[in-house]
Amino acid sequence: MTMDDGADLVTILHTQRSELVSNVIGGTEETTTGVVRLTAMANDDKLLYPVIAVNDAETKHFFDNRYGTGQSTLDGITRATNILWAGRRVVVAGYGWCGRGVASRARGMGSHVIVTETNPIRALEAVMDGFTVMKGIDAAKVGEVFITVTGGFHAIGREHIEAMPSGAILANSGHFNVEIDIPALEEMATAHREVRPFVEEYSMKDGRKLYLLGEGRLINLAAAEGHPSAVMDMSFANQALSAEFIVKNQGKLAAGVHGVPIETDREVGRLKLESLGVGIDSLSAEQQRYQESWEEGT
Amino acid sequence: MTMDDGADLVTILHTQRSELVSNVIGGTEETTTGVVRLTAMANDDKLLYPVIAVNDAETKHFFDNRYGTGQSTLDGITRATNILWAGRRVVVAGYGWCGRGVASRARGMGSHVIVTETNPIRALEAVMDGFTVMKGIDAAKVGEVFITVTGGFHAIGREHIEAMPSGAILANSGHFNVEIDIPALEEMATAHREVRPFVEEYSMKDGRKLYLLGEGRLINLAAAEGHPSAVMDMSFANQALSAEFIVKNQGKLAAGVHGVPIETDREVGRLKLESLGVGIDSLSAEQQRYQESWEEGT
Amino acid sequence: MTMDDGADLVTILHTQRSELVSNVIGGTEETTTGVVRLTAMANDDKLLYPVIAVNDAETKHFFDNRYGTGQSTLDGITRATNILWAGRRVVVAGYGWCGRGVASRARGMGSHVIVTETNPIRALEAVMDGFTVMKGIDAAKVGEVFITVTGGFHAIGREHIEAMPSGAILANSGHFNVEIDIPALEEMATAHREVRPFVEEYSMKDGRKLYLLGEGRLINLAAAEGHPSAVMDMSFANQALSAEFIVKNQGKLAAGVHGVPIETDREVGRLKLESLGVGIDSLSAEQQRYQESWEEGT
Amino acid sequence: MTMDDGADLVTILHTQRSELVSNVIGGTEETTTGVVRLTAMANDDKLLYPVIAVNDAETKHFFDNRYGTGQSTLDGITRATNILWAGRRVVVAGYGWCGRGVASRARGMGSHVIVTETNPIRALEAVMDGFTVMKGIDAAKVGEVFITVTGGFHAIGREHIEAMPSGAILANSGHFNVEIDIPALEEMATAHREVRPFVEEYSMKDGRKLYLLGEGRLINLAAAEGHPSAVMDMSFANQALSAEFIVKNQGKLAAGVHGVPIETDREVGRLKLESLGVGIDSLSAEQQRYQESWEEGT
Repeated sequence: MTMDDGADLVTILHTQRSELVSNVIGGTEETTTGVVRLTAMANDDKLLYPVIAVNDAETKHFFDNRYGTGQSTLDGITRATNILWAGRRVVVAGYGWCGRGVASRARGMGSHVIVTETNPIRALEAVMDGFTVMKGIDAAKVGEVFITVTGGFHAIGREHIEAMPSGAILANSGHFNVEIDIPALEEMATAHREVRPFVEEYSMKDGRKLYLLGEGRLINLAAAEGHPSAVMDMSFANQALSAEFIVKNQGKLAAGVHGVPIETDREVGRLKLESLGVGIDSLSAEQQRYQESWEEGT
Repeated sequence: MTMDDGADLVTILHTQRSELVSNVIGGTEETTTGVVRLTAMANDDKLLYPVIAVNDAETKHFFDNRYGTGQSTLDGITRATNILWAGRRVVVAGYGWCGRGVASRARGMGSHVIVTETNPIRALEAVMDGFTVMKGIDAAKVGEVFITVTGGFHAIGREHIEAMPSGAILANSGHFNVEIDIPALEEMATAHREVRPFVEEYSMKDGRKLYLLGEGRLINLAAAEGHPSAVMDMSFANQALSAEFIVKNQGKLAAGVHGVPIETDREVGRLKLESLGVGIDSLSAEQQRYQESWEEGT
Repeated sequence: MTMDDGADLVTILHTQRSELVSNVIGGTEETTTGVVRLTAMANDDKLLYPVIAVNDAETKHFFDNRYGTGQSTLDGITRATNILWAGRRVVVAGYGWCGRGVASRARGMGSHVIVTETNPIRALEAVMDGFTVMKGIDAAKVGEVFITVTGGFHAIGREHIEAMPSGAILANSGHFNVEIDIPALEEMATAHREVRPFVEEYSMKDGRKLYLLGEGRLINLAAAEGHPSAVMDMSFANQALSAEFIVKNQGKLAAGVHGVPIETDREVGRLKLESLGVGIDSLSAEQQRYQESWEEGT
Repeated sequence: MTMDDGADLVTILHTQRSELVSNVIGGTEETTTGVVRLTAMANDDKLLYPVIAVNDAETKHFFDNRYGTGQSTLDGITRATNILWAGRRVVVAGYGWCGRGVASRARGMGSHVIVTETNPIRALEAVMDGFTVMKGIDAAKVGEVFITVTGGFHAIGREHIEAMPSGAILANSGHFNVEIDIPALEEMATAHREVRPFVEEYSMKDGRKLYLLGEGRLINLAAAEGHPSAVMDMSFANQALSAEFIVKNQGKLAAGVHGVPIETDREVGRLKLESLGVGIDSLSAEQQRYQESWEEGT
């Protein structure tokens, strides 16, 4: 069985080590990015065994991506730089679950948050949630801290780097180290040096100084301690129960990407609430009946 | 064609006026509650024509239910009572899209918000969003204002009414007038009288006074002006475009509940952003390719 | 005794009806603006009897000006216009106690808040509190709703009116009707008409439409119900106890502006907390001693 | 000249090394606690030279105490423990400037914040700001993280330690290491050990485990890097300009505690805004005149 975090293991297995695939009964995947890659593989009919998209469990991505990444991204940047967040213009590239978490926590620390997006509906949500939404190139001109959480490629590209004010800080909390176009940054700079651990100062030809954190790798892992255990517990509970599910259903699941069974997801939620000492209600039989009925009403 | 808001029209059509159904080419439905009822009908094989669940468009329920209901619910209660929200303990029953909106806006006005839920994952989200989560009966003991947005039946029942402190205010912003058990309230009271427009004071046998707003009907419609036009525009755009879709696809859609086409949804979002003067980015060809590829990475 | 709200009564008494002054044993003043005027009178040696600045009691201006004005200003504008606050650019002129309240509540409703100020320290606080701070003329160009709470004169002047986008809404929650230069607005317009109660549409020569609410008078009084009783109770408790203080100290207080006795202020706070059922601690004898000592430490 | 941070140097100078006092022309003091001690000395006629209370400059305590302490306190606790703040019950003892900062930032990270106070007016402000206010002993029973910022002695005493749930975290960001009664904690424990750097686990006789951070010393200094430079710059500007003021006014200032001259304070604010590129307005001559006049109005 494979337990993967970004679908790298699965990719290597299907390309460089394909002789091993037939021994694998199934796998689990932890991240949004990995699920996107696996879904692309499955659409190409290239994924040769069943994988449970642990990331897509509500008790995983609602919490890990939002509250975990939200807090730990700011934590990583704080440890690397000791900047004051209050009053600072922070550009968050991407308003998915991770982006929402980062934007919300930056606002909670007193920052002026600017969001960039490519999805119009998410962009509208950001506007209505009280954030300023701009095109990336406009945000580049006014931002002081830039955080990429798009899950994609070169969210910060050459044109953005050219437009940024001197002193700008660049950090990634999304996908590997590809969200910031680091090759472009290096090419555009005349020199660079480490000014604090995890803080690389790039001297640009025009005299500006830009600061890349943690080599553009996930800043919460590079400069802080990753997610707190209080969110990882739910992710790992989903991982463990999904692994058990694969073993119990060996041979019954088609090759492809499968969701975490809803019963597993709810049970993880129920256990977590119990551990927090938080009580909730149950629907009464009458409420249940009313909800499922279409004849009552008005 | 039917354009419904709560599925009442569809229900009457399928029960009391079934002779008319064969003339209907399709319908649209505006609300969460209506979609739940229609889905129940469809599951019973009782829904005889295609209905577009306009509510389920992201440009509808993300905005109308959250920002519209959030603001207008508080507005209705303010107009009815002129209470100060700051420092007040507000119990929000239900943490769906409407409940999130109401909880968020009440916190934005300085209230101490308590959430009750039956879904463990939503309850956990409320906890992590910084709200206090309790069983309904515990919330009843400490709340000052109670707002129901569960979409269900008797979210506030006899036992909650018995536990509430004197002075408690009860309002509904969810489903018809059935979320508060008004028959129980009336039976438990010795007298009631209107103390302000939309505010009915119930004198309880034990001397407590409870205040029911707007007869337990949707308080934003009863005491305020409903949603602002800046959210209804998106709902109505979806309605209009869905109606056009039904006409254009007459005879091609199976009986049952259908989603709004994603192209329609995104187009509504795009137009709204444009009307607000907000710019967003597009994925470059390279970014698009990267996202769809599974071979690149790390 | 005079009980004044804006120092108009005192001004008339000292100018047009000065024959009555000798009969007055003292007075109280409710507002920031009134205290500023009375202090100016006292500095000119023109104030002929003692006045208690009720406004300056902490249990008055911390609450009434901040939470009262904050909520009721938004309430007034909502009732007048039914606008959606979420996602809207709201310019708050002035970041005193009233301005903080308005800015905080507008943000709580999802608005993008821009603050203008003349005091550098207040402007910095607004920046660090996460608001965008701009010169008035720059804010005029991008704002959608303008709210004046400076306590001064023509916070919105001709140049700002000229720069505003069509559709802009102008409301005042500060000082009389002088914070917006209404004579300039009228002169610059070709026509005006009431489009909703409390909403006057001005058609400008260049085709823009601007909307003045409540004739530029205090919008919370014009279009809503003023402050909720839950803040006025503290203001009036200070008024009543200050009036008693004046009677008890007749002849002993010098002409001029006096603060509310700190014992009165704290007692009002204590009583309010008690009414809310909120418990607080007392300093132990040991803690009291430690705090007053300078020999202990480290 | 003395430049002090807590008035320890001044105290030693006036007690153990009093022969040196006559050579001192004046001093400056950085902290609230120090100013309280110096004021007590002055009230006892024991302070023998003039001291500028730099802490009391608005550009110092509005920013350093609120935004600096707010952020760095959470930072210190995060680095020491890597806890998730979202959903956690955080008790903040004291709602002065530091307490406001800590409470605001903890809420911004998704915590449920409980405030304890001894001052009724501050307690009321906390209630209206949306925080839960309780007596210390009640907060002790439900809190998960306890942060002391009272500036006083034993804000967390034996009775609170006895009431805390197992797993509670205790941190101080206020006055030296005296805000938590550490001698009581040690006496009540059967053993203690370091479980992470800056985290001491105390095993209580009844089986509970309590976690004291940074030996109860200022946690932002113990486990993080203190305040970011973006707030210290204003404090130090006030220090430097106050030192210059003492030299220039040698022999002219009476022994005792003096405020920072308002011109100095405003100039620091003006320079800081300029450095941030933020523009503000100036009062026009007409506005100035209106504000100082008492004859105009209504």
